[in-house]
Amino acid sequence: MSAEAPLAGTTVAFLATDGVEEVEYLQPRAAVERAGGLVELVSTRMEPIRSVNGDLTPAGSYEVDRTVDQADPDGYDALVLPGGTVNPDRLRMDADAMRFVNSFFLDEKPVAAICHGPWSLVQTDVVRGRTLTSYPSLRADVTNAGGTWVDEPVHVESGLVTSRSPADLPAFCAKLVELFAQGRESGGMLPG
Amino acid sequence: MSAEAPLAGTTVAFLATDGVEEVEYLQPRAAVERAGGLVELVSTRMEPIRSVNGDLTPAGSYEVDRTVDQADPDGYDALVLPGGTVNPDRLRMDADAMRFVNSFFLDEKPVAAICHGPWSLVQTDVVRGRTLTSYPSLRADVTNAGGTWVDEPVHVESGLVTSRSPADLPAFCAKLVELFAQGRESGGMLPG
Repeated sequence: MSAEAPLAGTTVAFLATDGVEEVEYLQPRAAVERAGGLVELVSTRMEPIRSVNGDLTPAGSYEVDRTVDQADPDGYDALVLPGGTVNPDRLRMDADAMRFVNSFFLDEKPVAAICHGPWSLVQTDVVRGRTLTSYPSLRADVTNAGGTWVDEPVHVESGLVTSRSPADLPAFCAKLVELFAQGRESGGMLPG
Repeated sequence: MSAEAPLAGTTVAFLATDGVEEVEYLQPRAAVERAGGLVELVSTRMEPIRSVNGDLTPAGSYEVDRTVDQADPDGYDALVLPGGTVNPDRLRMDADAMRFVNSFFLDEKPVAAICHGPWSLVQTDVVRGRTLTSYPSLRADVTNAGGTWVDEPVHVESGLVTSRSPADLPAFCAKLVELFAQGRESGGMLPG
């Protein structure tokens, strides 16, 4: 690892589907790639996913690299869960997608989730006993699932980076690169 | 009350905002009006709300009759909560909207919620001890909030009608008219 390419040799899965908030996919992806990491967009079907701006305005479509039922979690060092309200609402009903998310926690690999992305963490029951943030609309769902919800631009704890909204993207991107680089050094999840 | 106009003299609030699933607003509204009821569209701002089809395709805009901070719950006999993923996700962050929803439960007036609409019931903590259905993505949120989730086209219990998705609209509309008419007869909430 070098200071210029802290994520060299690291492969990061971005799990998303239709309704992903465009900037929450593009900006973390660019941050990982600038840091020397490889990115694969993993989704539920092998069709371009339709992104949105502000949840309701159709935006760009993006090619999928691999379907989640064909994705081997061992092939990835870290996971990013972008938001957009509709995106995680669809992912959480896909059993393969939820098994994929859960495997990163079982293997203690770093995970970053922003905005509505943490719904996938509620669904896989991994927020229990954790402190995290999210889009404020998820506060009750996170709390009811046994998590502690905090109102912070970015929260890092036990290998999990979370942020609230697109406004937090600079802090989110910086912290996820930092955490993923630590994970790379140690070969596993580190306390944040 | 007559057989032809079972909702004559009844005023029904539809609470919705941008991102409402168009058919989940239009079809229940038409059912209430066909039954002789009056409908008011209540929202968070005095601007037309933007509906969607299938969550991601922009559809029609609809004039708002009243903002929720100006709506007196005493002026309504029943409440309908349409879905669309983004719509209730926004409503649940609006304190006036949640107070409005809660007032129908406090006053034991009938409520009907479809698809993602029940998120407002999770937010107001009224699902605790109740049995209901919703879009399947809400199953964990409903369960974590203390409710019992069932997979049925329509479920009626203790003055609450719930359905899963647009495919259930015929059953949803029939049952909500029936329940609202019972509520009208009794002057309050009846067991379903």
